Amino acid sequence: MRDFLPADKARREHVLAVIRAMFSAHGFDEIETPVMEDSVRLHAGLGGDNEKLAFGVLKRGLTAEDLAATSDPLDLADLGLRFDLTVPLARFYATHRAVLPAVFRSIQIAPVWRAERPQRGRYRQFVQCDIDIIGEPGPLAEVEILTATAATIDALGLTGWTIRVNDRRILTGLLNYSDVPIGLHERVLIAIDKLDKVGVGGVLDELTELGIQTERIALVLRDSGDNPGGWYFGDDTPDWLDTDAYDSLLRLREAVPSASFEFDPTLVRGMGYYTGTIFEIAHPASSSSLGGGGRYDGMIGRFLGVDVPAAGFSIGFERILDLLELPVAGSADAVALLYDAGVEPATLMELKAALIDSGRRVRLERAPRNVKPLLEQLAASGFSAVATVTPDVTDIAQLQFRALREG
Amino acid sequence: MRDFLPADKARREHVLAVIRAMFSAHGFDEIETPVMEDSVRLHAGLGGDNEKLAFGVLKRGLTAEDLAATSDPLDLADLGLRFDLTVPLARFYATHRAVLPAVFRSIQIAPVWRAERPQRGRYRQFVQCDIDIIGEPGPLAEVEILTATAATIDALGLTGWTIRVNDRRILTGLLNYSDVPIGLHERVLIAIDKLDKVGVGGVLDELTELGIQTERIALVLRDSGDNPGGWYFGDDTPDWLDTDAYDSLLRLREAVPSASFEFDPTLVRGMGYYTGTIFEIAHPASSSSLGGGGRYDGMIGRFLGVDVPAAGFSIGFERILDLLELPVAGSADAVALLYDAGVEPATLMELKAALIDSGRRVRLERAPRNVKPLLEQLAASGFSAVATVTPDVTDIAQLQFRALREG
Repeated sequence: MRDFLPADKARREHVLAVIRAMFSAHGFDEIETPVMEDSVRLHAGLGGDNEKLAFGVLKRGLTAEDLAATSDPLDLADLGLRFDLTVPLARFYATHRAVLPAVFRSIQIAPVWRAERPQRGRYRQFVQCDIDIIGEPGPLAEVEILTATAATIDALGLTGWTIRVNDRRILTGLLNYSDVPIGLHERVLIAIDKLDKVGVGGVLDELTELGIQTERIALVLRDSGDNPGGWYFGDDTPDWLDTDAYDSLLRLREAVPSASFEFDPTLVRGMGYYTGTIFEIAHPASSSSLGGGGRYDGMIGRFLGVDVPAAGFSIGFERILDLLELPVAGSADAVALLYDAGVEPATLMELKAALIDSGRRVRLERAPRNVKPLLEQLAASGFSAVATVTPDVTDIAQLQFRALREG
Repeated sequence: MRDFLPADKARREHVLAVIRAMFSAHGFDEIETPVMEDSVRLHAGLGGDNEKLAFGVLKRGLTAEDLAATSDPLDLADLGLRFDLTVPLARFYATHRAVLPAVFRSIQIAPVWRAERPQRGRYRQFVQCDIDIIGEPGPLAEVEILTATAATIDALGLTGWTIRVNDRRILTGLLNYSDVPIGLHERVLIAIDKLDKVGVGGVLDELTELGIQTERIALVLRDSGDNPGGWYFGDDTPDWLDTDAYDSLLRLREAVPSASFEFDPTLVRGMGYYTGTIFEIAHPASSSSLGGGGRYDGMIGRFLGVDVPAAGFSIGFERILDLLELPVAGSADAVALLYDAGVEPATLMELKAALIDSGRRVRLERAPRNVKPLLEQLAASGFSAVATVTPDVTDIAQLQFRALREG
C-alpha cells in the first residue's frame, strides 16, 4: 500500500478523469458500491484464487467467549474488502435490477484490495477501471466494450498495444479434441494459463502429471508460439477449432477497426466464470497484460437466480500508469506570491482572492532568506510565475510576476 | 453503507469536482493515503471516541493456535480502516516531511469508515473533504483555510450558512475561572459539548455530578443561549475571557469578509487534539454541523517527535450534499440511438464513433416494441435527444434527432 504525494496524485487524477470522460462518452454510467461486501459473498467461489487474498474485517463487539468458541479465523469476519469489482457489480445488479435500464452499461473506477506478499509491481491496494454491459446477449456488447477501451487507451496517448482474443468455447473444443475428461478441464486450463511463465515444456510436464495425452495440445501450443497472434486459419481450419466462435472473433475484429487484434488459442484468463469471448490488452513494454475481460453469462444468475448475459473489461490502471509519459500536471495559471513578514493577512487574502477570481491557482509562500530552493520547488510543482508582496502592495496591478522555469 | 446508482453517483462526482477545483485554486495540493493504517496508530489516543468505531482488519494466515492463544479480539487485527483523515495525514507528514514544502497545504478527498449503529443520516462509509496547513504557526493558516472553505461552499450554491468560532484557550479560561481542576477539564468539556442535545439544565446536572461549582459556567451557558452567535464583548470583557484569543477571533473575522461569523464560547468540537482556534459550519436546515476544524499544534509531534503547527478543516460531504438542490447531471450533448434488430454492429459503431467525435455522449438502445418507458428513462437520465437507426442509415447526416423532455 502506498502514499501518493501531490505530483503522483495529480497524475493519477488526470488519468482517471480521461478514462471516466471517455467511458461516459461511450454511453456507460458510473456507479459506486461500498468497499466492504459480506464475507459469504466474497467467498462464494466466483473470485477464483483472489478469494484467498481477501482481507477479512473483524466482527464488532467480539468477546473473549466468541474467540474461545471458534478455531476458524473466517468465523470472526462477517465483512471483507472486495478483491475485484465484478463480484460487487453482480450483487449491485441483483439488488437494483428493477430500476436499471434493460441493458445496463456500468462504469466502476475504484480501489480493490488483495493480501499479496509485497513484491515489485504488485500492490495490496490498487485501482481498477471496469466497464460492463449487462443484459446484452449479442456481439454488440463485446464490440462496444472493446471500442470504448480502445478509445480510452488512445486518449491516454499509449501506442503499440494490441488486443489478444480467444473464446472459452475454442479452449473447450481443444480440450475435447485432446480427450481431456470434463472433470479435468479447469485444472488443464490453469496449467495452460501459465504458458507465459513456464513455457511449453513446463505446461506439458504439468499435463503429463495429470495423466493427459499431450500430443495434440503440444501441437497447438507450439504453433501458437511459432506464429504469435496470428489469424492463421483460412478455409482449412484445424479439426479442434470451434468455427462459430472463431467466426465471431473475426467479426469482432472487423467491427473494432481502431484496434490491432491478435488471436491466441492458448489465452485462458484466470477467472472460471468466463463463458465466451475473452480478451486482454498486451503491450511490448509490460510482461503482464494491461487489463482484460470477456463474456460471463452465468455469473449474474448466481446472485439473481435468473441468468442474465454480461460482458466486461477491467483496465489495470496502475500498469497503464507506469507506461504513460505524462508531463508535470503544471498549469500556465498557477502562480505563487512570496510575502514579507510585515504584510497583513487580510491584504494577502485580498490579493489572493483577486488572482483566483481572474482564473489563477494561487499559492502563498513566506519569502525565505535564500529564495532559490523554494523557486525550484515551485517550478517542479507546476507553478509558472512568482511575484513578491511587500507591505506597499495593495492591488494585483502592482504585482510584478516573473516566470519560473523547471530544472 | 450504500450503493450509488448512476444519478446519485453523477451528483456526487460533480460536487467533489467543484470542491477539488476550489481547494486547488486556493493553493492546496491533493494527496492520498491507503484506506488501512496500522492498528496501533489508529488506537494511539488521537481519534477520541472514533477510535472505538474503527473497523479492524483480520491478520492474514491466522491459525487455530493463534486464536486459542488470545482472548482479546484486537490482537487479531494488525490493520484497521481509517475513521478520519487527520490521523493518516499526521502519519503521512511524518513519513514524507523531507520532500514536502516548508508550509504544506494538503487536500484529502476520500472515504472513512466508522462502525456506527445503523441510524438515519449516519453512514458506516462516508466521504470527508479535508484541507490542512502544516507548518504555519501564524493566523494566516486559519485565514486561508476558512477563505477556501467559504469559497467552496459558495461555489456549491449553498446560502444561509455561518461559521461558529471559539478558541480552546477561551474554554480553558472559563474552566479556570470556574475553579474546575485541570484533571477534570476534558470531562467538563465533553459535558459542555452536549449542550445542543441536553440543554443548559442537562449540562449543569452533569457538572454537578462531577462536583463542579456551576454558578459561573451557568451564567456563560445562559448568556450564550440568550445571545446566540453574538460578539457581545466591547471594552468591558468578562473576567473569564482570554482576551488574546478573543482578539485573534476578531481579526480572523475581519480577514475573511466573505463569511458570516458567530462567536460561541460554548463551542467545544469533540476531538481532544485541538489547541487554539476551533470552528464549524452551521446551517439552519441541518441540526448537526456541516463540517469543522481548528488548530492542532501538538498532534503532528506525536508521530514526528518534533512539534509542528497545524490547522485544518473537514467538510462533511454527505451532509452538504443533502442540502444542495442540484439538477439532474444532464448534458445537452447526451443522445441515444434506437436501433432496429437488422442493423449491423459495425454500422452502429461507426455512427456512434462519429457522434462521439463531434463531442456527444452516445447511448445505444435496441428499439423496444413500446418505446415510451425507454424514452422517459432516457430523459430522466439526462439524455436530450434520440434518433432511430434503420438498416438504410449509414451516415450521421441521415439521423433525425428529436428532443427528449423530462416528466
